[in-house]
Amino acid sequence: MTSTPTGTPMGARPDEVRRHNRTVLLRRLHVGGPCTRASLAAELGLNRSTIKALVDGLAESGVVEERVPRQRSGAGRPSLLVLPQAHAAVVLAVDVRVDQVAIALVGLGGEILGRNSWNLRVRTREPEEVVTHVVDSAIVLAADIGVTMVAGGVSVPGVVRRSDGLVHEAPNLHWTDVPLGDRLMSVFDMPVVVGNDAELGALAEHLRGAARGSSDAVYVSADVGVGGGVISDGSALRGTAGYVGELGHMMVNPAGRPCYCGSRGCWETEVGEPALCRALGLREGAPRGAVVAELRSLAESPEEVRERLAVFTEWLTVGLVNVVNVLGPELVVLGDLFTALPASLISDVAQEVRRRSLVSRAVGGTRIEASTLGGDSTLLGAAELAFEPVLDAV
Amino acid sequence: MTSTPTGTPMGARPDEVRRHNRTVLLRRLHVGGPCTRASLAAELGLNRSTIKALVDGLAESGVVEERVPRQRSGAGRPSLLVLPQAHAAVVLAVDVRVDQVAIALVGLGGEILGRNSWNLRVRTREPEEVVTHVVDSAIVLAADIGVTMVAGGVSVPGVVRRSDGLVHEAPNLHWTDVPLGDRLMSVFDMPVVVGNDAELGALAEHLRGAARGSSDAVYVSADVGVGGGVISDGSALRGTAGYVGELGHMMVNPAGRPCYCGSRGCWETEVGEPALCRALGLREGAPRGAVVAELRSLAESPEEVRERLAVFTEWLTVGLVNVVNVLGPELVVLGDLFTALPASLISDVAQEVRRRSLVSRAVGGTRIEASTLGGDSTLLGAAELAFEPVLDAV
Repeated sequence: MTSTPTGTPMGARPDEVRRHNRTVLLRRLHVGGPCTRASLAAELGLNRSTIKALVDGLAESGVVEERVPRQRSGAGRPSLLVLPQAHAAVVLAVDVRVDQVAIALVGLGGEILGRNSWNLRVRTREPEEVVTHVVDSAIVLAADIGVTMVAGGVSVPGVVRRSDGLVHEAPNLHWTDVPLGDRLMSVFDMPVVVGNDAELGALAEHLRGAARGSSDAVYVSADVGVGGGVISDGSALRGTAGYVGELGHMMVNPAGRPCYCGSRGCWETEVGEPALCRALGLREGAPRGAVVAELRSLAESPEEVRERLAVFTEWLTVGLVNVVNVLGPELVVLGDLFTALPASLISDVAQEVRRRSLVSRAVGGTRIEASTLGGDSTLLGAAELAFEPVLDAV
Repeated sequence: MTSTPTGTPMGARPDEVRRHNRTVLLRRLHVGGPCTRASLAAELGLNRSTIKALVDGLAESGVVEERVPRQRSGAGRPSLLVLPQAHAAVVLAVDVRVDQVAIALVGLGGEILGRNSWNLRVRTREPEEVVTHVVDSAIVLAADIGVTMVAGGVSVPGVVRRSDGLVHEAPNLHWTDVPLGDRLMSVFDMPVVVGNDAELGALAEHLRGAARGSSDAVYVSADVGVGGGVISDGSALRGTAGYVGELGHMMVNPAGRPCYCGSRGCWETEVGEPALCRALGLREGAPRGAVVAELRSLAESPEEVRERLAVFTEWLTVGLVNVVNVLGPELVVLGDLFTALPASLISDVAQEVRRRSLVSRAVGGTRIEASTLGGDSTLLGAAELAFEPVLDAV
C-alpha cells in the first residue's frame, strides 16, 4: 500500500488520474517512439477507450498525429499508429565541454532539429561569455527553425548542485561556483536544469543508447577528463546532496603523475585524452580529429594496437575492474573519445575484466561495449533533463 | 500521485490502512525505542485517537507495554510512554565469519537476549556442519531463554543471491553455491533471509549505529577480507541481480600481491587482517586478541603509529579516497577490526582523504569515523534482515 507521509492513503481525483495517464503515455511515445493504439493499451495496461480519449486530446492540441500504419497485421480494422510531433515541445540542450560548447534544439521524441557548436580554444571559457554565446546561438537557431523553446538542460564536466544549477567546481574548465542555472533561467525565462556530464551521458544511454533495457549500468566516458555515471536499479545514482561521484578520480597508479585534484595517478590521468595522445605518440592537446585518425589507422592491426597501447589498455582495464567490483553493473558503456578505440582493444579489455573481476564472474560476465550515441550522449542527456518537467505540462 | 503499474490509482481499504499504520508504528518503536503517545502522533502524523487505538491493540496482544513516564513535562495529564516488548517477537541472527560463527536471539526493539559463538579454526567450515551447529545452538539458546524464534537472518562474507539465500561464492570460506537459506528454512520451518556481511553491516550502522540519520553513507569493514556496504539516498545500494559490489577488490596497488580473486594488489590484500598483522610485525593468522592488544599498546604513541603503520595507513587512505570519489558519501563508517585502529591513525586518514578527494571537498568534507557497534554490526544487521517481514505480521 502506498501512502502519504501522514500515514493515510492518498486519494486521487479523476483529473489527476487523467493527467497522470497522459504523462505516462507521452513519456512512452517520447522515449519509445511511434506505437499503435493497441500496443499502447497493452504496454501501459490501460483500456482502449482510455487510450482513445487520451490520444484524441493530444492530437487535438497537436502533440501527436495519428496515421494508418503501412503494414497491416491481421484482417480487422488496423490500429492507428500514434506519432509524437517533434515541434509540439522543443527544448534547448547545451553540452559544455572542456574544448567546445555544443547546443541543440531537440523536439518531442528526441529528434535533433538543429545544432551548433564552437571551439573553446578559439573563444574564451570565461563563464559569462559562454552564457552570452549560448543565449545568442540558441535564439538564432530557434528563429531559423521557427520553434519556441520551452525548457533547457545543460551538461557540465564538473560537480553541480542540481537544485539551482550552481557549478561548484569544473576543474578542467577552471570554473568555481558559477551560478549557471540561475543565469540562463533569468535570460531565457524558462526552466533550465544543469547536470553533470557523466550522469547525463548515463541517462541518455539508458533511455536511447546501448544501456536501453539495462537496469544496472555504468557509463564511462573520456574527453580531456574521465567521468562516469551510474544507473542503479533503473535510476541515476547520486551521492550526498546530489553530488555524483567522480569515477575519473579513482587512484589506479600510485606511481602515476600528480592530478590537479590533489591525488596522483588518477584513472583520468592514465586514460584521459592527454594520456591517449602520449600513448599514440601525439603531442598532448593534439586536435581530436588527429587522435581519432591515428586510432582508425591503428585499428587495422590488432597486434600493433596491443603493442603500442599496452600501458593505456592496462590502466583502462584496472579502472574498469574497480568500477565493476564496486558497483556490480551488468553493462559498462564506454562513451565519447572511448568510442574511437579499436574494437580489438575493447574486446581485449572486456575479456581481461571478466578474468580479473570477482563480481563480473558472479553476475555472469559484465558486458563492456562502446556507446551507440557516440559524442551525442551528453547532449541528448541534457535534452532529457530538460524534458522531465515538460512532459508533465505539454 | 502514486499508482499501480496499470496506471490506475490504488485504492485502500480501511483494514489495509490500519495494518499499514500499525507496521509504521511498530517499526518506529523497534528502531527508535520507547516513545510517548504524543510524540508518536507528532512524528508519524497520525491523530491521537488513531495512535490510541493502535497502541491499545498492540498492548492487548502483548507487543507493547505502556508506562507513566518518570519525568513529567508540563502540568497536564502525562502522555503514556509506549515500550516495545522484546519477547513479543524474537528472531535468530547468524553471523558467519571466516574464523567464527556467532548467533544471537534478538528481541523486538533490537535487544540481544542471548548469544553464542564458536571458532571455525577448531570446528570445520564445511557448510553442512556449520548449518547443523547453527541449528543445534539456536534451539538450545531459545530453550534456555524460553522464547520462540519467528524468523532468521544470516550474514555471510560472500556473494549472495537474496531471493533464495544461495551463497554463490564466499572465497575466504571456500564456499561455492551453498543453498544456505533453503537449508535453514527447511530445518527451522520459518522464513530465513541471507545477506552479504558488508551490506548488513551498513544496514545496522544506518539503523542503530554511527550512520544513523545519514542518507548517504558507506560502511567499510575488515575481517580477514575487506568489504563495504553502501547506503544511498537512505536505501541499500545493490548491483545487478541483487549482487552487491566488493569494495575490497578495488585494485589499489598494481605492484601488490596476487589476490585469490584473479587480480592483484586488491584493497583487501593491502589492509585486511593479514596485512595488518604484517604491518604490526605479527605472523599472518595471529589470533584477533593479539592483533587488538598490539594496536592498543601502540595507540599511546601517535608518532610510533605513524612510523610503523605508514604503509598500511597509505593504502587505507588510497582506498578511502576512491570510495569517497566514486560514491560521494557524507560519512564513511569503519567497522569490525578497523574499530581497533588507533584514533590518531583514523584522524590522520580522515584529514588526508579530505585533502586528496575532490568529492570530499565538494560535499563539505566527508566524515570518517569508527563504528559504534564494533564487532556486532553484521550480527545486528542480520537481525534487521530477519525483522523486515516480521514487523508486518506481529
